[in-house]
Amino acid sequence: MTRWRLLIEYDGQKFSGWQRQDHAPSVQGAIEGAIEKLTQQKITIFVAGRTDSGVHARGQVAHVDLPEFAKPMRGFEVAKAINALLRPHAVSILRAEIVPDDFHARYHATNKLYEYRMLNRSGFLALEKGRVWHCKKPLDIAAMQEAARHLIGHHDFSTFRDSECQAKSPMRTLDRAEIMVRGNYEDQGAEIIFATEARSFLHHMVRNMVGTLVMVGEGKWSPQDVKDALEAKDRRKGGVTAPPDGLYLMRVDYPS
Amino acid sequence: MTRWRLLIEYDGQKFSGWQRQDHAPSVQGAIEGAIEKLTQQKITIFVAGRTDSGVHARGQVAHVDLPEFAKPMRGFEVAKAINALLRPHAVSILRAEIVPDDFHARYHATNKLYEYRMLNRSGFLALEKGRVWHCKKPLDIAAMQEAARHLIGHHDFSTFRDSECQAKSPMRTLDRAEIMVRGNYEDQGAEIIFATEARSFLHHMVRNMVGTLVMVGEGKWSPQDVKDALEAKDRRKGGVTAPPDGLYLMRVDYPS
Repeated sequence: MTRWRLLIEYDGQKFSGWQRQDHAPSVQGAIEGAIEKLTQQKITIFVAGRTDSGVHARGQVAHVDLPEFAKPMRGFEVAKAINALLRPHAVSILRAEIVPDDFHARYHATNKLYEYRMLNRSGFLALEKGRVWHCKKPLDIAAMQEAARHLIGHHDFSTFRDSECQAKSPMRTLDRAEIMVRGNYEDQGAEIIFATEARSFLHHMVRNMVGTLVMVGEGKWSPQDVKDALEAKDRRKGGVTAPPDGLYLMRVDYPS
Repeated sequence: MTRWRLLIEYDGQKFSGWQRQDHAPSVQGAIEGAIEKLTQQKITIFVAGRTDSGVHARGQVAHVDLPEFAKPMRGFEVAKAINALLRPHAVSILRAEIVPDDFHARYHATNKLYEYRMLNRSGFLALEKGRVWHCKKPLDIAAMQEAARHLIGHHDFSTFRDSECQAKSPMRTLDRAEIMVRGNYEDQGAEIIFATEARSFLHHMVRNMVGTLVMVGEGKWSPQDVKDALEAKDRRKGGVTAPPDGLYLMRVDYPS
């Protein structure tokens, strides 16, 4: 067996999340199905970060042990072979490469970048439905930026942790929490992006932070309220959970 | 009757173009159908720039004469009413506003901005299918930028004009022709955007320019070849026509 690392893109709207399920389409199930066709074996793949239903990935990473091929295949050939067997699923293997046998996609990740996209306008979404959070009320960007800065650093993130989160500790170190704006032609709306990086996140942590930041943008909360909520270490003091539509796992980093 | 100006977004993948057709879904047909439900009258709308099948709009503009409503409606109410009647079509009225009776969406436009999006990578598109041109070979951005500069200015654009174009003159003034790059995480690919502005364009002109610029990016043509092709004033000397997938009408400007 040889251990391979896969770089993966998928459209979260088409799946009930990453994790394999018996009666619903999953990204894991789609890829394992393609690998089974390729190798004639049932093989489990291990992912850097399981994503929920509706959450997208532009740079998910997984590892998998594949048997030797009759004729040795290079990385781009393995990616191409799996991609051909993945159709018509909305998943793409962007890269396949051999890694050491002890490489682990989840445990060896040193950093993850998530982006959360919001479209701030009143009009119905004709082009971006399912791909952004449609925020209809005007958002105060400067207030959201100030609030986001309170989240950076080493904290107990219980306030932004889903009640079903299975992580042992609520402590996480957020290295980046940045609100950016891209394009704004009046009624076409502004695209607002929350970019955040950490070694790992708690369950629903990004979506819970975004839901809270939007409450600040709408003027319901002050930036200081976010700091107070964080310090309360209590999910009931946090804001709403943003929908999965706008969330993208952009990149997972490993030691070089 | 009152003349209204509409700002419109649509997903070109869902339509056989702007223009009303008897046996195919069109953006014009969808909007006129909604207006007929609203007013109980068959009313024609006039657009700034007809788009072809598969071409998207984030900022299309049209005008339409609507009868007086029993109870006067404000712009956002008119937009909301039409939007409600447009479902499930992938069209959104982003703004409706009253304009003078002699306003004309097409004839009074002073400038149009088109963006053409390319995704440059080898891997299959899981997220952006139908929304970008998938350019699989590595593109030389600097060469494309140099070539694009040759297109700026007042020229005879016959080389980039579709044989079915009905414009009286092939002369156009291109005020902007810029190649920009957004994001590039190795195998995830670089998004390359061609942004171009002019008072008006010939039929297929943007897609023909993009197809030619990509030939430069792939090294098949030099930037000077683009200049020579333009000066030849002959469609047969131009490059291929880029697919509609990546083309977005972003904005139409009018005298304030």
